Amino acid sequence: MSRVRVNNFSISLDGYGAGPRQSHGNPLGVGGHQLHDWLFATRGRRAPLGHDDGEDGPDDRFARAGEDGLGATIMGRNMFGPTRGPWPADPWTGWWGQDPPFHHPVFVLTNHARPPLRLAGGTTFHFVSDGISAALERAREAAGERDIRIGGGVHTIRQYLRAGLIDELHLVLVPVLLGSGERLFADATPDGGPPGYDCVELVATAAVVHLRLRRSPAPADRSR
Amino acid sequence: MSRVRVNNFSISLDGYGAGPRQSHGNPLGVGGHQLHDWLFATRGRRAPLGHDDGEDGPDDRFARAGEDGLGATIMGRNMFGPTRGPWPADPWTGWWGQDPPFHHPVFVLTNHARPPLRLAGGTTFHFVSDGISAALERAREAAGERDIRIGGGVHTIRQYLRAGLIDELHLVLVPVLLGSGERLFADATPDGGPPGYDCVELVATAAVVHLRLRRSPAPADRSR
Repeated sequence: MSRVRVNNFSISLDGYGAGPRQSHGNPLGVGGHQLHDWLFATRGRRAPLGHDDGEDGPDDRFARAGEDGLGATIMGRNMFGPTRGPWPADPWTGWWGQDPPFHHPVFVLTNHARPPLRLAGGTTFHFVSDGISAALERAREAAGERDIRIGGGVHTIRQYLRAGLIDELHLVLVPVLLGSGERLFADATPDGGPPGYDCVELVATAAVVHLRLRRSPAPADRSR
Repeated sequence: MSRVRVNNFSISLDGYGAGPRQSHGNPLGVGGHQLHDWLFATRGRRAPLGHDDGEDGPDDRFARAGEDGLGATIMGRNMFGPTRGPWPADPWTGWWGQDPPFHHPVFVLTNHARPPLRLAGGTTFHFVSDGISAALERAREAAGERDIRIGGGVHTIRQYLRAGLIDELHLVLVPVLLGSGERLFADATPDGGPPGYDCVELVATAAVVHLRLRRSPAPADRSR
Protein backbone atom coordinates (compact mmCIF):
# COMPACT_ATOMS: atom_id res chain seq x y z
CA MET A 1 0.00 0.00 0.00
CA SER A 2 1.46 3.31 -1.10
CA ARG A 3 2.30 5.72 1.74
CA VAL A 4 2.91 9.44 1.85
CA ARG A 5 6.28 10.00 3.55
CA VAL A 6 8.59 12.72 4.73
CA ASN A 7 12.17 11.56 5.27
CA ASN A 8 15.38 13.06 6.60
CA PHE A 9 13.73 16.36 7.31
CA SER A 10 15.97 18.34 9.67
CA ILE A 11 14.71 20.79 12.26
CA SER A 12 16.64 22.81 14.82
CA LEU A 13 16.11 22.40 18.55
CA ASP A 14 13.98 25.52 18.46
CA GLY A 15 11.82 24.05 15.72
CA TYR A 16 12.99 25.65 12.50
CA GLY A 17 13.33 23.80 9.19
CA ALA A 18 15.12 26.77 7.65
CA GLY A 19 16.82 29.85 9.07
CA PRO A 20 15.64 33.45 8.69
CA ARG A 21 16.29 35.70 5.68
CA GLN A 22 16.28 33.02 2.96
CA SER A 23 17.71 34.31 -0.31
CA HIS A 24 19.13 33.11 -3.62
CA GLY A 25 22.64 33.03 -2.16
CA ASN A 26 21.44 31.54 1.11
CA PRO A 27 18.48 29.28 0.26
CA LEU A 28 18.41 27.69 3.72
CA GLY A 29 18.47 31.03 5.52
CA VAL A 30 20.98 32.31 8.06
CA GLY A 31 22.54 29.36 9.87
CA GLY A 32 20.30 26.90 8.03
CA HIS A 33 23.22 24.94 6.54
CA GLN A 34 23.86 23.52 10.03
CA LEU A 35 20.66 21.52 9.65
CA HIS A 36 22.20 19.39 6.91
CA ASP A 37 25.78 18.88 8.07
CA TRP A 38 24.84 15.45 9.48
CA LEU A 39 23.52 14.33 6.08
CA PHE A 40 26.56 15.39 4.10
CA ALA A 41 28.77 13.57 6.62
CA THR A 42 27.17 10.19 5.83
CA ARG A 43 28.99 7.57 3.81
CA GLY A 44 26.14 7.35 1.32
CA ARG A 45 26.25 11.04 0.52
CA ARG A 46 30.04 11.20 0.38
CA ALA A 47 30.46 8.24 -1.99
CA PRO A 48 29.22 10.07 -5.14
CA LEU A 49 31.82 12.75 -4.40
CA GLY A 50 34.62 10.17 -4.56
CA HIS A 51 35.10 9.69 -0.80
CA ASP A 52 35.10 6.25 0.76
CA ASP A 53 34.69 7.43 4.34
CA GLY A 54 31.87 9.01 6.31
CA GLU A 55 29.35 8.16 9.01
CA ASP A 56 28.10 4.62 8.41
CA GLY A 57 25.86 4.11 11.44
CA PRO A 58 22.24 5.16 11.98
CA ASP A 59 22.63 8.53 10.22
CA ASP A 60 23.67 6.72 7.05
CA ARG A 61 20.98 4.09 7.44
CA PHE A 62 18.21 6.68 7.83
CA ALA A 63 19.57 8.77 4.96
CA ARG A 64 19.52 5.76 2.62
CA ALA A 65 16.14 4.47 3.80
CA GLY A 66 14.63 7.82 2.88
CA GLU A 67 15.41 7.12 -0.78
CA ASP A 68 13.99 3.59 -0.86
CA GLY A 69 10.69 2.56 -2.37
CA LEU A 70 9.73 5.93 -3.81
CA GLY A 71 7.60 6.33 -6.90
CA ALA A 72 7.05 10.10 -6.87
CA THR A 73 8.16 13.26 -5.10
CA ILE A 74 6.19 16.44 -4.39
CA MET A 75 8.01 19.69 -3.61
CA GLY A 76 7.30 23.37 -3.30
CA ARG A 77 8.50 25.73 -5.98
CA ASN A 78 10.99 27.34 -3.59
CA MET A 79 12.69 23.99 -3.21
CA PHE A 80 12.80 23.55 -6.99
CA GLY A 81 14.61 26.82 -7.50
CA PRO A 82 15.23 30.37 -6.35
CA THR A 83 13.20 32.16 -9.05
CA ARG A 84 9.75 33.60 -8.29
CA GLY A 85 6.76 34.73 -10.32
CA PRO A 86 5.82 33.75 -13.91
CA TRP A 87 8.30 31.45 -15.69
CA PRO A 88 10.40 33.23 -18.33
CA ALA A 89 10.94 31.84 -21.84
CA ASP A 90 14.10 30.02 -20.79
CA PRO A 91 13.22 29.02 -17.25
CA TRP A 92 15.14 27.50 -14.35
CA THR A 93 15.51 23.70 -14.66
CA GLY A 94 16.20 22.79 -11.03
CA TRP A 95 19.25 22.66 -8.76
CA TRP A 96 20.18 19.14 -9.87
CA GLY A 97 21.62 19.39 -13.40
CA GLN A 98 20.68 17.28 -16.43
CA ASP A 99 20.42 13.95 -14.56
CA PRO A 100 18.66 14.69 -11.26
CA PRO A 101 18.86 12.08 -8.50
CA PHE A 102 15.11 11.44 -8.38
CA HIS A 103 14.61 8.93 -11.24
CA HIS A 104 10.85 9.28 -10.90
CA PRO A 105 8.20 11.95 -11.57
CA VAL A 106 8.50 15.08 -9.42
CA PHE A 107 5.48 17.33 -8.89
CA VAL A 108 6.35 20.97 -8.24
CA LEU A 109 3.69 23.12 -6.56
CA THR A 110 3.50 26.51 -8.25
CA ASN A 111 1.01 29.25 -9.03
CA HIS A 112 2.32 29.47 -12.57
CA ALA A 113 1.54 26.76 -15.13
CA ARG A 114 4.39 25.36 -17.17
CA PRO A 115 4.81 22.33 -19.47
CA PRO A 116 6.54 19.27 -18.02
CA LEU A 117 10.34 19.22 -18.05
CA ARG A 118 11.78 15.83 -18.97
CA LEU A 119 15.41 15.29 -17.97
CA ALA A 120 17.74 12.28 -18.05
CA GLY A 121 17.53 9.21 -15.81
CA GLY A 122 13.75 9.01 -15.54
CA THR A 123 13.15 12.34 -13.81
CA THR A 124 10.34 14.50 -15.19
CA PHE A 125 9.28 17.67 -13.38
CA HIS A 126 5.55 18.32 -13.58
CA PHE A 127 4.29 21.75 -12.56
CA VAL A 128 1.02 21.64 -10.65
CA SER A 129 -0.90 24.86 -10.20
CA ASP A 130 -4.19 23.56 -8.81
CA GLY A 131 -3.25 22.79 -5.21
CA ILE A 132 -1.77 20.21 -2.88
CA SER A 133 -4.60 17.67 -3.25
CA ALA A 134 -4.37 17.71 -7.03
CA ALA A 135 -0.60 17.26 -6.79
CA LEU A 136 -1.03 14.31 -4.43
CA GLU A 137 -3.59 12.72 -6.72
CA ARG A 138 -1.25 12.95 -9.68
CA ALA A 139 1.66 11.67 -7.57
CA ARG A 140 -0.42 8.68 -6.45
CA GLU A 141 -1.21 7.84 -10.03
CA ALA A 142 2.46 8.06 -10.99
CA ALA A 143 3.76 6.13 -7.96
CA GLY A 144 1.46 3.12 -8.19
CA GLU A 145 2.37 0.74 -5.37
CA ARG A 146 5.42 2.75 -4.40
CA ASP A 147 5.54 5.57 -1.85
CA ILE A 148 5.19 9.29 -2.36
CA ARG A 149 7.72 11.63 -0.79
CA ILE A 150 6.80 15.12 0.32
CA GLY A 151 10.25 16.58 -0.25
CA GLY A 152 9.87 20.05 1.25
CA GLY A 153 10.40 22.80 2.01
CA VAL A 154 8.91 23.64 5.36
CA HIS A 155 5.84 25.39 4.01
CA THR A 156 4.93 22.48 1.74
CA ILE A 157 5.28 19.88 4.50
CA ARG A 158 3.25 22.06 6.85
CA GLN A 159 0.42 22.25 4.32
CA TYR A 160 0.28 18.46 3.90
CA LEU A 161 0.56 17.93 7.68
CA ARG A 162 -2.34 20.26 8.42
CA ALA A 163 -4.42 18.52 5.79
CA GLY A 164 -3.67 15.21 7.55
CA LEU A 165 -2.23 13.74 4.37
CA ILE A 166 1.15 12.51 5.66
CA ASP A 167 1.41 8.89 6.85
CA GLU A 168 5.01 8.82 8.05
CA LEU A 169 7.25 11.64 9.16
CA HIS A 170 10.95 11.06 9.80
CA LEU A 171 12.41 14.13 11.46
CA VAL A 172 16.01 14.79 12.35
CA LEU A 173 16.46 17.02 15.35
CA VAL A 174 19.70 18.96 15.12
CA PRO A 175 20.79 20.32 18.50
CA VAL A 176 21.41 23.89 17.40
CA LEU A 177 19.37 27.02 18.02
CA LEU A 178 18.66 29.14 14.95
CA GLY A 179 16.81 31.86 16.87
CA SER A 180 14.19 32.37 14.18
CA GLY A 181 13.24 31.11 10.74
CA GLU A 182 10.58 28.92 9.20
CA ARG A 183 8.91 26.72 11.79
CA LEU A 184 7.66 23.22 10.97
CA PHE A 185 5.14 22.95 13.81
CA ALA A 186 3.55 26.38 13.93
CA ASP A 187 0.56 25.92 16.19
CA ALA A 188 -0.61 22.91 14.20
CA THR A 189 -3.87 22.68 16.14
CA PRO A 190 -4.62 26.11 17.61
CA ASP A 191 -7.29 24.72 19.89
CA GLY A 192 -4.94 22.13 21.37
CA GLY A 193 -5.09 18.40 21.18
CA PRO A 194 -2.52 16.26 19.49
CA PRO A 195 -2.13 16.52 15.73
CA GLY A 196 -2.49 12.75 15.54
CA TYR A 197 1.04 11.37 15.24
CA ASP A 198 2.83 8.89 17.49
CA CYS A 199 6.57 8.54 17.85
CA VAL A 200 7.46 4.96 16.83
CA GLU A 201 11.25 5.27 16.81
CA LEU A 202 13.72 7.50 18.67
CA VAL A 203 17.45 7.18 17.99
CA ALA A 204 20.19 9.58 19.07
CA THR A 205 23.50 9.51 17.22
CA ALA A 206 26.66 11.48 17.91
CA ALA A 207 25.27 14.33 15.81
CA VAL A 208 21.48 14.34 15.83
CA VAL A 209 18.28 12.66 16.98
CA HIS A 210 16.13 10.69 14.57
CA LEU A 211 12.40 10.55 15.27
CA ARG A 212 9.96 8.54 13.25
CA LEU A 213 6.34 9.57 13.64
CA ARG A 214 3.42 7.62 12.30
CA ARG A 215 -0.12 8.81 11.91
CA SER A 216 -2.21 7.49 14.79
CA PRO A 217 -4.71 4.79 13.80
CA ALA A 218 -7.76 6.87 14.63
CA PRO A 219 -6.77 10.52 15.12
CA ALA A 220 -10.34 11.70 15.51
CA ASP A 221 -10.80 9.52 18.60
CA ARG A 222 -7.89 11.07 20.44
CA SER A 223 -9.64 14.30 21.35
CA ARG A 224 -11.91 12.49 23.79
CA MET B 1 31.50 30.02 40.79
CA SER B 2 27.73 30.16 41.10
CA ARG B 3 25.83 29.37 37.89
CA VAL B 4 22.28 30.08 36.79
CA ARG B 5 20.74 26.77 35.70
CA VAL B 6 17.60 25.29 34.24
CA ASN B 7 17.27 21.55 34.80
CA ASN B 8 14.89 18.83 33.76
CA PHE B 9 12.77 21.20 31.76
CA SER B 10 10.55 19.18 29.43
CA ILE B 11 9.40 20.36 26.02
CA SER B 12 7.33 18.57 23.42
CA LEU B 13 8.65 17.78 19.95
CA ASP B 14 6.74 20.78 18.66
CA GLY B 15 8.40 23.01 21.23
CA TYR B 16 5.84 23.49 24.00
CA GLY B 17 6.67 23.54 27.71
CA ALA B 18 2.98 23.44 28.61
CA GLY B 19 -0.15 22.56 26.68
CA PRO B 20 -2.94 24.96 25.73
CA ARG B 21 -5.82 26.06 27.98
CA GLN B 22 -3.99 25.96 31.33
CA SER B 23 -6.35 26.12 34.27
CA HIS B 24 -6.54 25.43 38.00
CA GLY B 25 -7.62 21.86 37.35
CA ASN B 26 -5.15 21.42 34.51
CA PRO B 27 -2.09 23.55 35.40
CA LEU B 28 0.05 22.00 32.63
CA GLY B 29 -2.59 22.57 29.96
CA VAL B 30 -4.26 20.01 27.70
CA GLY B 31 -1.92 17.07 27.21
CA GLY B 32 0.83 18.76 29.22
CA HIS B 33 1.07 15.94 31.78
CA GLN B 34 2.78 13.84 29.09
CA LEU B 35 5.79 16.12 29.42
CA HIS B 36 6.49 14.83 32.92
CA ASP B 37 5.71 11.11 32.70
CA TRP B 38 9.43 10.34 32.24
CA LEU B 39 10.29 12.17 35.49
CA PHE B 40 7.70 10.40 37.62
CA ALA B 41 8.90 7.06 36.25
CA THR B 42 12.41 7.56 37.68
CA ARG B 43 13.58 5.65 40.72
CA GLY B 44 14.46 8.87 42.55
CA ARG B 45 10.97 10.27 42.20
CA ARG B 46 9.25 7.00 43.04
CA ALA B 47 11.23 6.34 46.22
CA PRO B 48 9.49 9.02 48.35
CA LEU B 49 6.18 7.40 47.37
CA GLY B 50 7.29 4.09 48.84
CA HIS B 51 8.27 2.35 45.60
CA ASP B 52 11.65 0.69 45.20
CA ASP B 53 11.48 0.38 41.41
CA GLY B 54 11.63 2.82 38.53
CA GLU B 55 13.97 3.95 35.77
CA ASP B 56 17.51 4.04 37.18
CA GLY B 57 19.48 4.95 34.04
CA PRO B 58 20.15 8.36 32.51
CA ASP B 59 16.64 9.72 33.20
CA ASP B 60 17.19 9.13 36.90
CA ARG B 61 20.73 10.49 36.80
CA PHE B 62 19.63 13.72 35.11
CA ALA B 63 16.65 14.10 37.43
CA ARG B 64 18.87 13.82 40.50
CA ALA B 65 21.66 16.03 39.12
CA GLY B 66 19.12 18.79 38.68
CA GLU B 67 18.68 18.96 42.44
CA ASP B 68 22.40 19.05 43.28
CA GLY B 69 24.36 22.08 44.34
CA LEU B 70 21.46 24.52 44.48
CA GLY B 71 21.36 27.48 46.83
CA ALA B 72 18.25 29.25 45.56
CA THR B 73 15.33 28.81 43.15
CA ILE B 74 13.45 31.43 41.15
CA MET B 75 9.97 30.70 39.81
CA GLY B 76 7.05 32.52 38.27
CA ARG B 77 3.93 33.05 40.29
CA ASN B 78 1.95 30.68 38.07
CA MET B 79 4.30 27.91 39.08
CA PHE B 80 3.89 28.78 42.75
CA GLY B 81 0.15 28.44 42.59
CA PRO B 82 -3.04 28.76 40.57
CA THR B 83 -4.34 31.99 42.13
CA ARG B 84 -4.06 35.33 40.30
CA GLY B 85 -4.23 39.01 41.27
CA PRO B 86 -3.72 40.56 44.72
CA TRP B 87 -3.04 38.10 47.56
CA PRO B 88 -6.03 37.62 49.88
CA ALA B 89 -5.72 37.71 53.70
CA ASP B 90 -5.21 33.97 53.90
CA PRO B 91 -3.22 33.34 50.71
CA TRP B 92 -2.06 30.24 48.86
CA THR B 93 1.10 28.72 50.36
CA GLY B 94 2.36 26.69 47.39
CA TRP B 95 1.69 23.25 45.93
CA TRP B 96 4.20 21.56 48.22
CA GLY B 97 2.66 21.44 51.71
CA GLN B 98 4.33 22.44 54.99
CA ASP B 99 7.77 20.96 54.22
CA PRO B 100 8.51 21.78 50.56
CA PRO B 101 11.30 19.88 48.81
CA PHE B 102 13.44 22.96 48.14
CA HIS B 103 15.31 23.41 51.47
CA HIS B 104 16.62 26.78 50.29
CA PRO B 105 15.19 30.25 49.59
CA VAL B 106 12.71 30.42 46.71
CA PHE B 107 12.05 33.72 44.93
CA VAL B 108 8.59 34.01 43.41
CA LEU B 109 8.09 36.60 40.65
CA THR B 110 4.82 38.45 41.18
CA ASN B 111 3.25 41.84 40.58
CA HIS B 112 1.80 41.80 44.08
CA ALA B 113 4.02 42.33 47.13
CA ARG B 114 3.68 39.93 50.03
CA PRO B 115 5.75 39.20 53.15
CA PRO B 116 8.05 36.18 53.07
CA LEU B 117 6.54 32.79 53.86
CA ARG B 118 8.78 30.63 56.02
CA LEU B 119 7.96 26.91 55.97
CA ALA B 120 9.66 23.82 57.43
CA GLY B 121 12.92 22.28 56.23
CA GLY B 122 14.72 25.49 55.28
CA THR B 123 12.35 26.66 52.55
CA THR B 124 11.30 30.31 52.62
CA PHE B 125 9.28 31.80 49.77
CA HIS B 126 10.19 35.41 49.02
CA PHE B 127 7.86 37.40 46.79
CA VAL B 128 9.69 39.70 44.39
CA SER B 129 7.70 42.39 42.64
CA ASP B 130 10.50 44.45 41.08
CA GLY B 131 11.51 42.29 38.14
CA ILE B 132 13.68 39.37 37.02
CA SER B 133 17.02 41.13 37.58
CA ALA B 134 16.12 42.06 41.14
CA ALA B 135 15.04 38.48 41.79
CA LEU B 136 18.31 37.15 40.40
CA GLU B 137 20.32 39.58 42.51
CA ARG B 138 18.56 38.44 45.65
CA ALA B 139 18.93 34.80 44.66
CA ARG B 140 22.67 35.27 44.10
CA GLU B 141 23.02 36.77 47.54
CA ALA B 142 21.13 33.86 49.09
CA ALA B 143 22.92 31.14 47.11
CA GLY B 144 26.50 32.23 47.78
CA GLU B 145 28.80 29.76 46.01
CA ARG B 146 25.96 27.44 45.14
CA ASP B 147 23.91 27.52 41.92
CA ILE B 148 20.63 29.27 41.21
CA ARG B 149 17.85 27.35 39.54
CA ILE B 150 15.32 29.03 37.28
CA GLY B 151 12.49 26.65 38.05
CA GLY B 152 9.87 27.73 35.54
CA GLY B 153 7.34 27.99 34.11
CA VAL B 154 7.88 28.56 30.44
CA HIS B 155 7.30 32.31 30.56
CA THR B 156 9.82 32.81 33.36
CA ILE B 157 12.53 30.76 31.65
CA ARG B 158 11.91 32.60 28.40
CA GLN B 159 12.40 35.95 30.13
CA TYR B 160 15.74 34.90 31.64
CA LEU B 161 16.85 33.32 28.34
CA ARG B 162 16.13 36.48 26.38
CA ALA B 163 18.01 38.54 28.93
CA GLY B 164 20.99 36.22 28.42
CA LEU B 165 21.08 35.37 32.12
CA ILE B 166 21.05 31.55 31.95
CA ASP B 167 24.39 29.73 31.99
CA GLU B 168 23.21 26.14 31.62
CA LEU B 169 19.99 24.78 30.18
CA HIS B 170 19.11 21.09 30.50
CA LEU B 171 16.11 20.35 28.30
CA VAL B 172 14.22 17.11 28.02
CA LEU B 173 12.65 16.58 24.63
CA VAL B 174 9.55 14.43 24.91
CA PRO B 175 8.55 12.91 21.56
CA VAL B 176 4.91 13.92 21.62
CA LEU B 177 3.09 16.62 19.70
CA LEU B 178 0.89 18.92 21.78
CA GLY B 179 -0.40 20.90 18.81
CA SER B 180 -0.28 24.23 20.65
CA GLY B 181 0.52 25.68 24.05
CA GLU B 182 3.27 27.76 25.60
CA ARG B 183 6.43 27.70 23.51
CA LEU B 184 9.89 27.86 25.08
CA PHE B 185 11.72 29.15 22.01
CA ALA B 186 9.35 31.70 20.55
CA ASP B 187 11.45 33.50 17.95
CA ALA B 188 14.20 34.12 20.48
CA THR B 189 16.15 36.33 18.10
CA PRO B 190 13.72 37.71 15.52
CA ASP B 191 16.53 38.94 13.28
CA GLY B 192 18.17 35.55 13.19
CA GLY B 193 21.49 34.42 14.43
CA PRO B 194 22.00 31.91 17.21
CA PRO B 195 20.83 32.79 20.71
CA GLY B 196 24.28 31.89 21.95
CA TYR B 197 24.00 28.37 23.34
CA ASP B 198 25.92 25.25 22.35
CA CYS B 199 24.77 21.70 22.88
CA VAL B 200 27.37 19.99 25.07
CA GLU B 201 25.53 16.73 25.75
CA LEU B 202 22.90 14.74 23.86
CA VAL B 203 21.52 11.52 25.32
CA ALA B 204 18.48 9.58 24.14
CA THR B 205 16.81 7.16 26.53
CA ALA B 206 13.90 4.84 25.92
CA ALA B 207 11.51 7.68 26.76
CA VAL B 208 13.06 11.05 25.98
CA VAL B 209 16.11 12.97 24.78
CA HIS B 210 18.26 14.94 27.20
CA LEU B 211 20.05 17.98 25.83
CA ARG B 212 22.46 20.07 27.84
CA LEU B 213 23.11 23.53 26.44
CA ARG B 214 25.78 25.87 27.69
CA ARG B 215 26.10 29.54 26.96
CA SER B 216 28.69 30.09 24.24
CA PRO B 217 31.90 31.73 25.46
CA ALA B 218 31.52 34.84 23.31
CA PRO B 219 28.01 35.04 21.85
CA ALA B 220 28.61 38.45 20.30
CA ASP B 221 31.35 37.06 18.05
CA ARG B 222 29.08 34.44 16.53
CA SER B 223 27.15 36.81 14.31
CA ARG B 224 30.17 37.35 12.07
